[in-house]
Amino acid sequence: MTDARFALVVGTTETATIDGISAAGAAPEVMRYTPVADAELLYYGRPTRSPAVPVSPTGCPTPALVTRAVRELVGFDPLVVEAGLAESTGAPTLSVGPTPGRDVRDPEAVPDAPAIVERAREVGRSLHDAELVVGESVPGGTTTALGVFEALGVADSVSSSLPENPLSLKRRVVEESLAASGAEAGSLAGRPVEAVRATGDPVLAAVFGLAEGALATDTAVTLAGGTQMLAVAALLRHGGYGGDLTVATTPFVAADDSAATRETAAALDVDLVVTDPGFESSDHVAAERFLHGEAKEGAGMGGALALADREGVPMAAVRDRLFERYDALLGGEDGAP
Amino acid sequence: MTDARFALVVGTTETATIDGISAAGAAPEVMRYTPVADAELLYYGRPTRSPAVPVSPTGCPTPALVTRAVRELVGFDPLVVEAGLAESTGAPTLSVGPTPGRDVRDPEAVPDAPAIVERAREVGRSLHDAELVVGESVPGGTTTALGVFEALGVADSVSSSLPENPLSLKRRVVEESLAASGAEAGSLAGRPVEAVRATGDPVLAAVFGLAEGALATDTAVTLAGGTQMLAVAALLRHGGYGGDLTVATTPFVAADDSAATRETAAALDVDLVVTDPGFESSDHVAAERFLHGEAKEGAGMGGALALADREGVPMAAVRDRLFERYDALLGGEDGAP
Repeated sequence: MTDARFALVVGTTETATIDGISAAGAAPEVMRYTPVADAELLYYGRPTRSPAVPVSPTGCPTPALVTRAVRELVGFDPLVVEAGLAESTGAPTLSVGPTPGRDVRDPEAVPDAPAIVERAREVGRSLHDAELVVGESVPGGTTTALGVFEALGVADSVSSSLPENPLSLKRRVVEESLAASGAEAGSLAGRPVEAVRATGDPVLAAVFGLAEGALATDTAVTLAGGTQMLAVAALLRHGGYGGDLTVATTPFVAADDSAATRETAAALDVDLVVTDPGFESSDHVAAERFLHGEAKEGAGMGGALALADREGVPMAAVRDRLFERYDALLGGEDGAP
Repeated sequence: MTDARFALVVGTTETATIDGISAAGAAPEVMRYTPVADAELLYYGRPTRSPAVPVSPTGCPTPALVTRAVRELVGFDPLVVEAGLAESTGAPTLSVGPTPGRDVRDPEAVPDAPAIVERAREVGRSLHDAELVVGESVPGGTTTALGVFEALGVADSVSSSLPENPLSLKRRVVEESLAASGAEAGSLAGRPVEAVRATGDPVLAAVFGLAEGALATDTAVTLAGGTQMLAVAALLRHGGYGGDLTVATTPFVAADDSAATRETAAALDVDLVVTDPGFESSDHVAAERFLHGEAKEGAGMGGALALADREGVPMAAVRDRLFERYDALLGGEDGAP
């Protein structure tokens, strides 16, 4: 069992309901359950209160299934942190914010951002773990991440949970968001909490605070994810943190041309760790859909793969466990309890 | 790693503040933190939000330290269920009731007992684990347990977290409780939820519901504790459950003459499992205080010891881990973070 603690920060926003923004669970009424189901998958290995395992119409499972598979092989303690869930989860959680994020096009996307950040900092400071790996699950999260990049004036691009990244839509939404907040590109540089309040989401606020608090107490932090975790890295840098930062993600994000992941990481002086699960070697539908560019990241998938790799767990074992869980949960046996 | 899920149900009541009722953390202002600290000890191995490790004036640690020691050796998933905490805990929790229990001498000790029981049933039904071990941490819990025995008309006696069991005080309090509720001994037989509402506490309501829900979905349930878990067994029997029931406790409860544990268990057709940690072989202060009859049970200690025993972990290893944790946490190093 690894000593690393794995925190999954879950929440929702109205931004996710903007038509065409996110693939995290197709329809809006399904999407609100995605973070809830991800938390239950990580903790129990199956949905308990949520209706089903999030899966795309073509059969791509939520990346939480990968994170769970790794947990079963590596054995880490999950800490589910709640920041704006729209539905309650059957997983035990630590709440740092009760209210879902608003539409970023509202004047304030996260009105209680300062309180969320402070509560999350307290949690981060209280852990005293040697290492903290932080993942996220929030539909529409790459759009709010883009908003934060813009507000801070960080040169960037963002990834997507859709094969065809609706980047122009995202940029249009973010422009409206900044305008509605009376901000413009770069006008919130050096003011991370204000940037999240204006154009972010509750999960970004919580991950930022959690990381700041942990780093302040000498806990090594790995930001597990793609675009959103780079946005958190930007928030940390603009908050004055000058130390080491690691972002662990998947090759699906790193290979996404629309997201200049490596350039952004370099610009933020972030150590980017990319771990390849080796799906090319398999013809399982889950492997195929991931390779096709669906659900490139999420629920700390990249960080989980990095943990497995570091603990000496072969990727073949991770793949086998993933497919096993997929078939058990989505093979019609008990996918929707 | 065992497949058993270990649920710790934590809460507080005004009953605990009655002078002389409980030893769970001496002064009332300290006692309200005992269940919070127990949850954090089980989950993190140290207090995070709570001020300190609960320890008696003479140096007897909370039994949660034993449960944590076993967790480190056996490796089970803890599920902290919240039912009426007075202070928020830094451990992730699943809440089935937000309100602390009242003084049992009020007309209704647990006004929202029906809602707590129903929410807990849903949790129990949703787990689908092969086995569920349930412990509790609620100061003053043996008095409310006595209230439930009386209301149901179950011949009983109860144990105490004090070397000298203030039984006459407890009986007087329970008589007042029944009178205030318009009930009398046995008048709530066959009505478990009403019995908890009248003279119980939120934790009894939650453990009862959790157990009913789990048993209804063929999850084997071990009630981990002494007097309070026998009260839950009584609630289950009066709720119509006729199947197997196991209560796993410590020799300190089983040997407590004032608590006719074995007789009560037999009367309820409960399989009583007693696991001896073998403290006689040690001169560590924790061992001495437990042998002296302080903190006889709590936080699922008896169930944890039974798990360790079943998993083939030698009691010597449990003792060593306990003393190690005790010295690290209470040796002044970081007992009060």
